[in-house]
Amino acid sequence: MTRDEARAMDAVDPLRGVRDRFTLPEGVIYLDGNSLGALPTATPARVAQTVEREWGEGLIRSWNDAGWIDAPARVAAGIAPLIGARADEVVVADSTSINLYKLLMAALAARPGRHVILTEPGNFPTDLYMAQGIAAGADVDVRAVPRDRIIEAIDDSVAVVMLTHVHYRTAEMFDMATVTAAAHRAGALMLWDLSHSAGAVPVDLDGAGADLAVGCGYKYLNGGPGAPAFLYVAERHRALLTSPLTGWMGHVAPFTFGDDYAPCATMRRWLCGTPPILGLAALEAGIATFDGVDRAALFAKGQALADLFVAEVEARCPSLTLASPRDAARRGSHISFAHDDAFPVMAALIDRGVIGDFRAPDLLRFGFTPLYTSFDDVWRAADILADVLDSGAWNDPRYRARGAVT
Amino acid sequence: MTRDEARAMDAVDPLRGVRDRFTLPEGVIYLDGNSLGALPTATPARVAQTVEREWGEGLIRSWNDAGWIDAPARVAAGIAPLIGARADEVVVADSTSINLYKLLMAALAARPGRHVILTEPGNFPTDLYMAQGIAAGADVDVRAVPRDRIIEAIDDSVAVVMLTHVHYRTAEMFDMATVTAAAHRAGALMLWDLSHSAGAVPVDLDGAGADLAVGCGYKYLNGGPGAPAFLYVAERHRALLTSPLTGWMGHVAPFTFGDDYAPCATMRRWLCGTPPILGLAALEAGIATFDGVDRAALFAKGQALADLFVAEVEARCPSLTLASPRDAARRGSHISFAHDDAFPVMAALIDRGVIGDFRAPDLLRFGFTPLYTSFDDVWRAADILADVLDSGAWNDPRYRARGAVT
Repeated sequence: MTRDEARAMDAVDPLRGVRDRFTLPEGVIYLDGNSLGALPTATPARVAQTVEREWGEGLIRSWNDAGWIDAPARVAAGIAPLIGARADEVVVADSTSINLYKLLMAALAARPGRHVILTEPGNFPTDLYMAQGIAAGADVDVRAVPRDRIIEAIDDSVAVVMLTHVHYRTAEMFDMATVTAAAHRAGALMLWDLSHSAGAVPVDLDGAGADLAVGCGYKYLNGGPGAPAFLYVAERHRALLTSPLTGWMGHVAPFTFGDDYAPCATMRRWLCGTPPILGLAALEAGIATFDGVDRAALFAKGQALADLFVAEVEARCPSLTLASPRDAARRGSHISFAHDDAFPVMAALIDRGVIGDFRAPDLLRFGFTPLYTSFDDVWRAADILADVLDSGAWNDPRYRARGAVT
Repeated sequence: MTRDEARAMDAVDPLRGVRDRFTLPEGVIYLDGNSLGALPTATPARVAQTVEREWGEGLIRSWNDAGWIDAPARVAAGIAPLIGARADEVVVADSTSINLYKLLMAALAARPGRHVILTEPGNFPTDLYMAQGIAAGADVDVRAVPRDRIIEAIDDSVAVVMLTHVHYRTAEMFDMATVTAAAHRAGALMLWDLSHSAGAVPVDLDGAGADLAVGCGYKYLNGGPGAPAFLYVAERHRALLTSPLTGWMGHVAPFTFGDDYAPCATMRRWLCGTPPILGLAALEAGIATFDGVDRAALFAKGQALADLFVAEVEARCPSLTLASPRDAARRGSHISFAHDDAFPVMAALIDRGVIGDFRAPDLLRFGFTPLYTSFDDVWRAADILADVLDSGAWNDPRYRARGAVT
């Protein structure tokens, strides 16, 4: 494809105007929205209002007057349609890691006599680590089975199957309905991590019969660095499952200040401490970038962007090996290519203004956020990547220096 | 005392200029900094920089380039001198509730064969609730003993004594060194909740030999609504205690993305998920309001403000009963008075521009933040309170309507 052809695709893209909802720096092609979503244009004013007006002028009164106390449920209601959930099945709280802990512990308590958390090796590390932390302190085993043998491994020792819907490295996507059904046949609960799915691919938790889910606020939901995370519990389980992290904000009546814990009847029972209001305000503005956007068109565009990138890179960068599914229907909205020197290659690419990321040991990872990524971006990114590889620019020793986060 | 005399105290207050570090709304006397600290003048620009420049322009690069990854340790280093700790004994993470869970679980693991968490009835609810959540899922008992019998109740069944240093209702303060020594004599660990202490009264964790502590970022530390909390582990315990919430940010090398958890050697081991960067930025600006402030003068002023309030209220409001220690050395930096109709009295008072808070069932609570509260504020607050009570203004039915947070 030529650059003009890519531009022609942008000209007929029904979502091209949505890019204006984001403030992107000059001279950068940002292909890392799967790690940290870009800044929505409305966010600075929204955060400033929360800081200056709600906190500065409203002070403590804003818990009621500015609706701070309802923010975890209100923001969750904006996430629900992106994940196939009802508003009353979702709440925004804490981090993905902590929400995993809550739901794993609740699932184990709901399946007495079963002691296994079933997952896959190479799952996102925090998912594995949180499960290992539970296993270290209780009669629980973490069983990690390669993904193509997960279904057959679900037996009556398994309390909960914990999988990431879209893999953080390869973008390979599980069939949510099929795996969930297999878990249920064996009497296990199904917990999905949607960190790389929510806002990027169609998700239908209710339709798939999922039990539990968590996900991240700072990737495709554009909530900002370290945004609060979300948590889903299917309505049929709501009254039966309780958080092990029984903080005051999950209490049925926190402001009676009683000595004995009793969980709230709603999803608020999954809150623990005081909600992070600045983070919630930014996340609410992030989710608002989806307002009125046709989701079928959005996800189709994400697939087309990634397809274009795969085609251009494979045509022009023979030293790279595709590490993601070629079939767009089987993957999320990011693409990885393997290269033995992926770290310096990515460093050189970032130096040229194309921001993807490196995932140890050998992956170049590129995220395609259809809200703000254009076909021209993708074409140019492939072009610059080919030039970095062809020129050997990445061999410069300065590209081998690592920061804390690499 | 006359108002002119109160103003004369302000005129000679060595900290009078520090008030300019805060933006306080016109027409309000804010005596609720013990619940939500006021907005530091520098915070809006600091948060805007984090949002617009670091996130918007730096994007994912800011984890390294803007020092986001080090924020939990960097902000903690600013808290350490306020609580008598070394910088490498403190980290900022999650909420007070979640940090209580981490440290209670770690303490129980460190004292095998002991099954009791000893606390007091009427401790801040989330402290009790988090302990109850642990007891519900393990062979652990929560023993709640009135504070005057705590020391004698520490026996060899007690793994950890969990107390709030300054009581959230009465402001009564424990003698940290005495109770800690008693816990140690019985072989128990001592966990202090400093939520109503840090930044308000002298705290010397290291000097008292404390083992563990947590505290809140949004009260006297002025970090904003739902600010992240902090956590302290005495250096001698650091390598021995680990978090049960084994998230990737506590891993020794999170960006190697390995499958097996191994805790970081530093206090970073107490992190769990991705740090909340907007909240950390605001908290850092909040803690900076203490820069260069003489702490002895600060705490002495807090005592003098509260003493003045007690004297004026007792002289002019005979229907109120002091519910806090009269001796400033035995209390924190807030004062509570009991009244059978405390809720409508406080609502009427807030309507007159004096913001304190109500604590069920019968307390009017007033916080004195010496960084920004003047003696004139205190005099006028007492004057308006006397007028609200004398006039019966609080009997208006509209003052009985309750919001979600009351």
